[in-house]
Amino acid sequence: MTVRTPDPNPGWLDETELTAARARLPMIYVEAIPVRLDDYGRVVEVGLLYRADTSGNFRYSFVSGRVLYMQSIRDTLMTHLEKDLGTLAMPQLPITLQPFTVAEYFPYASSSGLTDDRQHAVALCYVVPVRGDTQPRQDALDVAWMSPEQALSPEITNEFEGGRGKLVTQALAWANWGF
Amino acid sequence: MTVRTPDPNPGWLDETELTAARARLPMIYVEAIPVRLDDYGRVVEVGLLYRADTSGNFRYSFVSGRVLYMQSIRDTLMTHLEKDLGTLAMPQLPITLQPFTVAEYFPYASSSGLTDDRQHAVALCYVVPVRGDTQPRQDALDVAWMSPEQALSPEITNEFEGGRGKLVTQALAWANWGF
Amino acid sequence: MTVRTPDPNPGWLDETELTAARARLPMIYVEAIPVRLDDYGRVVEVGLLYRADTSGNFRYSFVSGRVLYMQSIRDTLMTHLEKDLGTLAMPQLPITLQPFTVAEYFPYASSSGLTDDRQHAVALCYVVPVRGDTQPRQDALDVAWMSPEQALSPEITNEFEGGRGKLVTQALAWANWGF
Amino acid sequence: MTVRTPDPNPGWLDETELTAARARLPMIYVEAIPVRLDDYGRVVEVGLLYRADTSGNFRYSFVSGRVLYMQSIRDTLMTHLEKDLGTLAMPQLPITLQPFTVAEYFPYASSSGLTDDRQHAVALCYVVPVRGDTQPRQDALDVAWMSPEQALSPEITNEFEGGRGKLVTQALAWANWGF
Repeated sequence: MTVRTPDPNPGWLDETELTAARARLPMIYVEAIPVRLDDYGRVVEVGLLYRADTSGNFRYSFVSGRVLYMQSIRDTLMTHLEKDLGTLAMPQLPITLQPFTVAEYFPYASSSGLTDDRQHAVALCYVVPVRGDTQPRQDALDVAWMSPEQALSPEITNEFEGGRGKLVTQALAWANWGF
Repeated sequence: MTVRTPDPNPGWLDETELTAARARLPMIYVEAIPVRLDDYGRVVEVGLLYRADTSGNFRYSFVSGRVLYMQSIRDTLMTHLEKDLGTLAMPQLPITLQPFTVAEYFPYASSSGLTDDRQHAVALCYVVPVRGDTQPRQDALDVAWMSPEQALSPEITNEFEGGRGKLVTQALAWANWGF
Repeated sequence: MTVRTPDPNPGWLDETELTAARARLPMIYVEAIPVRLDDYGRVVEVGLLYRADTSGNFRYSFVSGRVLYMQSIRDTLMTHLEKDLGTLAMPQLPITLQPFTVAEYFPYASSSGLTDDRQHAVALCYVVPVRGDTQPRQDALDVAWMSPEQALSPEITNEFEGGRGKLVTQALAWANWGF
Repeated sequence: MTVRTPDPNPGWLDETELTAARARLPMIYVEAIPVRLDDYGRVVEVGLLYRADTSGNFRYSFVSGRVLYMQSIRDTLMTHLEKDLGTLAMPQLPITLQPFTVAEYFPYASSSGLTDDRQHAVALCYVVPVRGDTQPRQDALDVAWMSPEQALSPEITNEFEGGRGKLVTQALAWANWGF
């Protein structure tokens, strides 16, 4: 959802079938914004995935994954946190499934300001504290840790695809930030 | 989702295609629990849909509907509130899309305690205040208004299908009830 | 809390006693951000209280009031909504007491970025839809209705006292806004 | 707030002054329900403080403490978690200050069902994951770890003072439990 690589998890559908389904059904996703907390629960750093596009510009994204058939939200979160942050990240999954927001992506005519060329998607968005080390994946996505102020700056929020930068504001507002 | 009638909104899929998709993709739903509030925002009454099954037992359910392709969560909520409560109900849709809970239904091997024979479904659950009059639909579902205490009683919560009774507890706990 | 008029609700304390208590105990407040919603629950307008200071600059604030001894949060909200918006405003108080945020004000050395010269205060912050007409109070506070975009602009958020502008961001982020 | 020992934190007030203030101002508290989570964020165990009263009956309570003048909510939470669970508990404080509920205690004529003989108190209630070992304090309060089902049983919820048992239901409903 966040990057234009082939979907690594087609579930029980092959690529052709998944493409067909995407043209007629909304897909369910989870999105996670990794953070580092101090001992008092305050957000000290925000972890954003990024990679340079062909023009050398940075494109930021979140940990994100489609909920597969018969897979729970918590399993989906864990699978994609491990895939994008490595197995030593030690993420702390949320106690409640109540997300800080629900993001609606549309391929066109978006009423939410969020777009996804490939599909109509509904994403449950969570902030996930990470205690361990994060490791770059092989396939180009890296993790950038930055202060909340940096993460909220237009230089960063404008470099997300599909308007996702506004989810940074929403996540940090939920964590008591705001300007 | 709540009753065994044919899905009235197959979206851009015909019944056969929808059945096929349901066997391989999770479906997204919204569920709404209608309530009447006093002037101070306290829940005075809870509205539950019901109908008698062939044995004469009452089966309760919520306002519920599948999110169709290119339809927003708010549109889906409004469509199904009007369909189930009538056009004079005057529902007040939530300010935030953050649901009070997210319910996960599985056709078998449910890890959440919630089941739906037909499909794997993820439902965003909202409490929706209603100010106007509710009217029975033609096709058998009626609305029962009752006190929060009644709605929380085992006589009611046990008469929901698929374990949905626990969502009444979660909704009312969110509204500051608890025993 | 938002303006420097004498506290209109000293409760069972006279002014001298209240001043003494304020030097040694945190005070509990409620703050409400009035909004107008469309039929789908989306925020269309934000209502901010304002008045011109002696230099002719506008100072914005929220509906705000101290929780008095033996008064409930809901009663306090209603009292201050009626006082600041008039008796025809028809506010819809929240179903849940869970606030969208908790604001901590300190008279000095603030760790939250929020300050209040007079006291250490903890405020429970709510967004409150208003359906009726709002009317200026006699004592100078008026209500300005504006779009969410305007309310989030630095021209407005910088004209709040004590850093309260950031609560506008937090309230609107909770209502799914963000830049 | 939870037990009848002298308040260990009179802040800048001596006992006499604090007693006088309690007769005329609401006090602000934080309450924390410690939990143990599995790797997927699900509540596995609930930690309740208890002690036997003079008749040998168990009385349960939460981690609880008054917010002192100039002390933040996060500091107050940490202070009382350490005091009641020991310094090796490794609590994970919440990312957001938004509590799962706000509890209102009144000394008489309670409109919330919650009572506190000593005072009118407003408590911000949080669920706090604990990763380390909890240790009994010297002064009689011990920690009982039990399953969510046990914590929700009437045998436990009825043994809280002042109606606090209903907060267990609210906390676990927020964490997706419900019957």
